[in-house]
Amino acid sequence: MTQFNLLQTRLVEPNAAAWKDYTQHSFVEELAKGILPEACFQHYLQQDYLFLKHYARAYALAIYKSDNIADMGPSFTCLQGLIGGELMLHLGYCQEWGLDAQAIEALEEGVATVAYTRFVIDTGVAGDLLDLLVALAPCALGYAEIGTRLYSATSSVPEGNPYWPWVEMYASEDFISSVNNQLSFLEEKLIEIPLDSPRWAKLQRIFCTATKMESAFWQQGLAVNQA
Amino acid sequence: MTQFNLLQTRLVEPNAAAWKDYTQHSFVEELAKGILPEACFQHYLQQDYLFLKHYARAYALAIYKSDNIADMGPSFTCLQGLIGGELMLHLGYCQEWGLDAQAIEALEEGVATVAYTRFVIDTGVAGDLLDLLVALAPCALGYAEIGTRLYSATSSVPEGNPYWPWVEMYASEDFISSVNNQLSFLEEKLIEIPLDSPRWAKLQRIFCTATKMESAFWQQGLAVNQA
Amino acid sequence: MTQFNLLQTRLVEPNAAAWKDYTQHSFVEELAKGILPEACFQHYLQQDYLFLKHYARAYALAIYKSDNIADMGPSFTCLQGLIGGELMLHLGYCQEWGLDAQAIEALEEGVATVAYTRFVIDTGVAGDLLDLLVALAPCALGYAEIGTRLYSATSSVPEGNPYWPWVEMYASEDFISSVNNQLSFLEEKLIEIPLDSPRWAKLQRIFCTATKMESAFWQQGLAVNQA
Amino acid sequence: MTQFNLLQTRLVEPNAAAWKDYTQHSFVEELAKGILPEACFQHYLQQDYLFLKHYARAYALAIYKSDNIADMGPSFTCLQGLIGGELMLHLGYCQEWGLDAQAIEALEEGVATVAYTRFVIDTGVAGDLLDLLVALAPCALGYAEIGTRLYSATSSVPEGNPYWPWVEMYASEDFISSVNNQLSFLEEKLIEIPLDSPRWAKLQRIFCTATKMESAFWQQGLAVNQA
Repeated sequence: MTQFNLLQTRLVEPNAAAWKDYTQHSFVEELAKGILPEACFQHYLQQDYLFLKHYARAYALAIYKSDNIADMGPSFTCLQGLIGGELMLHLGYCQEWGLDAQAIEALEEGVATVAYTRFVIDTGVAGDLLDLLVALAPCALGYAEIGTRLYSATSSVPEGNPYWPWVEMYASEDFISSVNNQLSFLEEKLIEIPLDSPRWAKLQRIFCTATKMESAFWQQGLAVNQA
Repeated sequence: MTQFNLLQTRLVEPNAAAWKDYTQHSFVEELAKGILPEACFQHYLQQDYLFLKHYARAYALAIYKSDNIADMGPSFTCLQGLIGGELMLHLGYCQEWGLDAQAIEALEEGVATVAYTRFVIDTGVAGDLLDLLVALAPCALGYAEIGTRLYSATSSVPEGNPYWPWVEMYASEDFISSVNNQLSFLEEKLIEIPLDSPRWAKLQRIFCTATKMESAFWQQGLAVNQA
Repeated sequence: MTQFNLLQTRLVEPNAAAWKDYTQHSFVEELAKGILPEACFQHYLQQDYLFLKHYARAYALAIYKSDNIADMGPSFTCLQGLIGGELMLHLGYCQEWGLDAQAIEALEEGVATVAYTRFVIDTGVAGDLLDLLVALAPCALGYAEIGTRLYSATSSVPEGNPYWPWVEMYASEDFISSVNNQLSFLEEKLIEIPLDSPRWAKLQRIFCTATKMESAFWQQGLAVNQA
Repeated sequence: MTQFNLLQTRLVEPNAAAWKDYTQHSFVEELAKGILPEACFQHYLQQDYLFLKHYARAYALAIYKSDNIADMGPSFTCLQGLIGGELMLHLGYCQEWGLDAQAIEALEEGVATVAYTRFVIDTGVAGDLLDLLVALAPCALGYAEIGTRLYSATSSVPEGNPYWPWVEMYASEDFISSVNNQLSFLEEKLIEIPLDSPRWAKLQRIFCTATKMESAFWQQGLAVNQA
């Protein structure tokens, strides 16, 4: 994966504890070992479909917020990926897990699903394109980090692990390359912001809250088993 | 309290279970009996301050979404109440409970606080004025119902109950009259919608989700004690 | 072209005078006869490029405003057409007319360009998806009507007319079919609105204002010659 | 009037020609001499009422876009001024000029009215609070400059000038003090932006376009007489 200097040193590092909670959450650790309860994974998959729908809305918002055609490009690529294929793939993947497409559409969003998706959108509507891209960043960056790390972790158990295709997907070249595209664009925009400005402080708050909402999203999956 | 026919029969009644969960939540039942753990109430009060800030933003959004000056009126009255007094009163009330104003401003929003407030705002940005007003309705209507019910419930314990001023506030003539103003305006708008239209179905979904987010907000207060 | 009953009888017909001003404007009549001053056409082409950029933003907004993936489809198709090709084609077309790509990007928007594009966008942000689609409709519907009418009008002069490719483009099967797709989706949504509701009255006002802004856009092209 | 250093040197001065076109437009010069045709003034007054309605919407949008209660303050003061009084005063003023309140509400917006108001709003929705405040600035700053200059200009004719109350209003202490409040807040926000950043370049483009839309608004008033 490409190294994103500003993203790493100015958004991830000052936010280290929350970042670790998210990227090393029990949900993904158990998933990589194949010991995550099936009900947790199924619940997560369903909520993730609802999440992706609002994620597509957020990228459409980013296109609306772009000053010129060049700036529309990276968000359009993400939107195209989602509407043109990923959402359908996701439904297919859900069906392999015995989850019916129509049932998923009718599903109720969990509190953490609402919290994360609407936080991103309100941040994006109230702020500008950069605020929106920063609110969207923990998802792409974190999933790429989780995917690549778990794919080669000695603690991971690929064999006989029903969740291993999930790990492979988020460690795949295609996924990493799409993340690199998105985040390169963000990194270019971040360079324009002076490091000691109130603007950076705000972007850090946005990144930190979005990261915590990601953890809450994993937690929501785990909680199914505790209910 | 004024009877709002459409609100009652077309939004509250089809949503009866979720409405009961919200308006008869353990949080408010324990509060009325004076047995709610102090930590729960304090946590709720702080999160409620953060909630009110976004509630003010949502009413400002409603003004932006108004076609004419007359439609701006009811939302402006709410916004004026919040910015001109209630938010300050709330901070004062927090201080009586040993909660420092600056600490509250710096406070982190809970997942349920984010979920509820941003759901209302995204519903309002994506939809029109009516969608927004319906997303805002469970709060005003529910608090008025909770306040008046608990104020005269035989199960309530006013004497020596440190939370009783909270009950009195939401049963007060001032509060009820402000709720009546808001909801009368909403009721007028609802009359325009044919009862069997997809529009009503959507408004019901909005009202239902907002109601559930209210319950999650109470639950977030109770959870402090379970952590 | 497909017949759109509601669009025709409830939006175009009550708006007949403004619709005629727009679709039979001297700008397009002179264009079809090949007697439009070149400076007018060049100015129009440049402003139309700036227009299309905001048109893409408006379709992205429509995707953000969609409740589900199915509703995103028609707007995504339009957005994809614009970002994936039409904007580039338009720049190429401008270059054939001696207009430099970079110069166009740096161009200042005329008052009528600002008025039309931002009216559509504000209507869409303040209202819901249907308000936005109605604000976008006069453009697609009107250009299709203008293109097909002029293409076979006896008053038109195809031979030696430097503007004839413009007429051919807006009379082409590809264009008409894309307009049909968009407007079919709008027509489906319009069916849900009761004919005597305040909602229809509002949609008519939106359609009417957007139509007048289209006329102002032609007029802005003609005015170059009068300056 | 308070001196606003950044506003003056970084927004007005690089935009000197457009600023002069706006603040020394024939419309206000003729108005100060009492030679402006009555039909022009009446048309302007009516369109200005429609303008103020959207101006109120834009200030409501600024409140929605505020991160905290303190930032909401200045925009709330403007909104309160408009909804709580100025819009009514304006209607009253229109009536003195023989313009009926109901007729004004039903009035059609001119192209320049649409262009200016919707440009401000789209700039504000797409960008952040600062973008919105900069789009709003030429109005307050320009009217204060026009009012104070014309009030004491030797070329002005106060006696027997039916438009003199207009000059007096925009030169009044009340108006200047309200402008100072708004612009002080903006100036504080502008200080955070590094002078050679792309952000400043964008803010300058916004200020410049809004200034030109103001000129077009005067021109729209004058054009009545040429029609």
